[in-house]
Amino acid sequence: MATSLRSIKSLAPLLDRILVQRIKAEAKTASGIYLPESTVEKLSEAKVLAVGPGGTDKEGKRIEVSVKPGDRVLIPQYGGSPVKVGDEEYHLFRDHELLAKINE
Amino acid sequence: MATSLRSIKSLAPLLDRILVQRIKAEAKTASGIYLPESTVEKLSEAKVLAVGPGGTDKEGKRIEVSVKPGDRVLIPQYGGSPVKVGDEEYHLFRDHELLAKINE
Amino acid sequence: MATSLRSIKSLAPLLDRILVQRIKAEAKTASGIYLPESTVEKLSEAKVLAVGPGGTDKEGKRIEVSVKPGDRVLIPQYGGSPVKVGDEEYHLFRDHELLAKINE
Amino acid sequence: MATSLRSIKSLAPLLDRILVQRIKAEAKTASGIYLPESTVEKLSEAKVLAVGPGGTDKEGKRIEVSVKPGDRVLIPQYGGSPVKVGDEEYHLFRDHELLAKINE
Amino acid sequence: MATSLRSIKSLAPLLDRILVQRIKAEAKTASGIYLPESTVEKLSEAKVLAVGPGGTDKEGKRIEVSVKPGDRVLIPQYGGSPVKVGDEEYHLFRDHELLAKINE
Amino acid sequence: MATSLRSIKSLAPLLDRILVQRIKAEAKTASGIYLPESTVEKLSEAKVLAVGPGGTDKEGKRIEVSVKPGDRVLIPQYGGSPVKVGDEEYHLFRDHELLAKINE
Amino acid sequence: MATSLRSIKSLAPLLDRILVQRIKAEAKTASGIYLPESTVEKLSEAKVLAVGPGGTDKEGKRIEVSVKPGDRVLIPQYGGSPVKVGDEEYHLFRDHELLAKINE
Repeated sequence: MATSLRSIKSLAPLLDRILVQRIKAEAKTASGIYLPESTVEKLSEAKVLAVGPGGTDKEGKRIEVSVKPGDRVLIPQYGGSPVKVGDEEYHLFRDHELLAKINE
Repeated sequence: MATSLRSIKSLAPLLDRILVQRIKAEAKTASGIYLPESTVEKLSEAKVLAVGPGGTDKEGKRIEVSVKPGDRVLIPQYGGSPVKVGDEEYHLFRDHELLAKINE
Repeated sequence: MATSLRSIKSLAPLLDRILVQRIKAEAKTASGIYLPESTVEKLSEAKVLAVGPGGTDKEGKRIEVSVKPGDRVLIPQYGGSPVKVGDEEYHLFRDHELLAKINE
Repeated sequence: MATSLRSIKSLAPLLDRILVQRIKAEAKTASGIYLPESTVEKLSEAKVLAVGPGGTDKEGKRIEVSVKPGDRVLIPQYGGSPVKVGDEEYHLFRDHELLAKINE
Repeated sequence: MATSLRSIKSLAPLLDRILVQRIKAEAKTASGIYLPESTVEKLSEAKVLAVGPGGTDKEGKRIEVSVKPGDRVLIPQYGGSPVKVGDEEYHLFRDHELLAKINE
Repeated sequence: MATSLRSIKSLAPLLDRILVQRIKAEAKTASGIYLPESTVEKLSEAKVLAVGPGGTDKEGKRIEVSVKPGDRVLIPQYGGSPVKVGDEEYHLFRDHELLAKINE
Repeated sequence: MATSLRSIKSLAPLLDRILVQRIKAEAKTASGIYLPESTVEKLSEAKVLAVGPGGTDKEGKRIEVSVKPGDRVLIPQYGGSPVKVGDEEYHLFRDHELLAKINE
């Protein structure tokens, strides 16, 4: 999903969508040797960049999303909509698809 | 989905449908060389041209859609109903299928 | 779906169904040459001929349909129930399947 | 679905079910020549023979069905439960599966 | 679904389930000749032997089932849970799966 | 589904789940001859060992399950979650999956 | 689902998710002989490490989850989202997917 965006900051998720960026695994062994990127396993961790205003319940009230920008979260293995800005890839998930917050 | 429409402006989306036109990638490299269109990746960005009045909740009240004409939005990779007016292609999405607003 | 109907006007759609007839593309080029019908692309436009009374919400109240006889509408590429009266073909759609009204 | 019923009149549809009999196409050309039955296209028209009391909404109130015995209706191409009484075939549809009433 | 039951009368259907026994077609021609059982078509008729107390609506009230023991009913061609007691086979259907009552 | 449980009595089903043990068919003919177990058909009967507190309706009230420990029940042919404690196999069903109570 | 987490304790499940760790079968026979791990059957038992705040009902009230940290639970054979922290594997389940509590 290529875009012509200059900055990911221009993206304001709609409804209960959450914009995240996957955290990259360190491509370095414990002893300090750098590994080729293709051998590094993808992490299921992501940083929340922006959140939507929340979906609405049956009376039209907003249902707040459960994370906020800056949160670190555990994302599911599959799903989410990829977005590309420049060379960086981001993902949009629905709030209920996020698995856990990471407090570390 | 061919039409005999003279202008896309005649189209008034029903319920929660949103009429958008995909933004075309610049077929020009940074150094100003024009590229053949087939080599240019499709963008996931679109401009909102018209919005429906919104669907109705269980009490029959309208649920307002979350974008307005002129908004730039991030659209999903798949889905949406294509509409052709003359040589231009447009798409109709349901409001909740749109991923994010673009403020740029 | 063959019928023995003498006139399509005898058909009163039930619930939220909408009876439409697809608008035929002009089988004539700009310079006035007639084309064989098989080379003419089908249009996604249709004229509303009759509408049902609407479905009912959970309290049993009618939910009005969003179009009326005489409206021109954009219909989806797939779906709808075909009805044949004489040599003419018509379609029945549910109200929410119609994509847009055409004001032209 | 064979039955041992002596008469279709013994059948009282349950809930929102509608008992109909398909109308047979005239196996005769305009000029009066009789056609073998296998060459006659099946019609999508049916006569309503009996209707159920209607399903119930969430408060337990009956939702009236939208047709009555004697009505002629347009039935969908697929679906419905066949019932055989003697040599005649009948069908049971749910009320919302019927497409339109025929007023002719 | 074999059981060790001595009598089908011990079976009390739960929720909206209906216990029925299919009515057997007479294996005898009109002129009184007995036919081998395998040539006799299965009937879609059944006798209601026992009914459950009904499911519950969203407020926890029981929704009464629409048939009672002794009723004859039209059953669908597929579905239902078979139960075997001795050499006899019975079926359990959900109330809404039954098609019609037979008043004959 | 192996477990390290010492006793099935330690298992307290959650929500509307029902823990049952299938009743074994007597591997003995009427004349008293014992049959090899593999020739004995599995029965669809089970004994209820423990029941969950029930699921909750939309107002958060508990919906009581329809059976109690000690009840004999008819279980469906497929479905249920197997649990193994020692050499014995048990099953967990949702309350609404049970077909009938057996009063014998 | 690799992570860079230093400790599983940093994981706070969202909504109605439950973080569990499968209990390992003793890789030792009754007579004290150690078995290679690959021959040891996986257990369906798990220890609850952390629970989410619960999902919300239609009025926006929290629906409490049915287990708490420290509980031992029976988990289903399939499903759940795996999480890896260091060499240990954990799973996240939705509250209603857990089968039973183990009181032993």
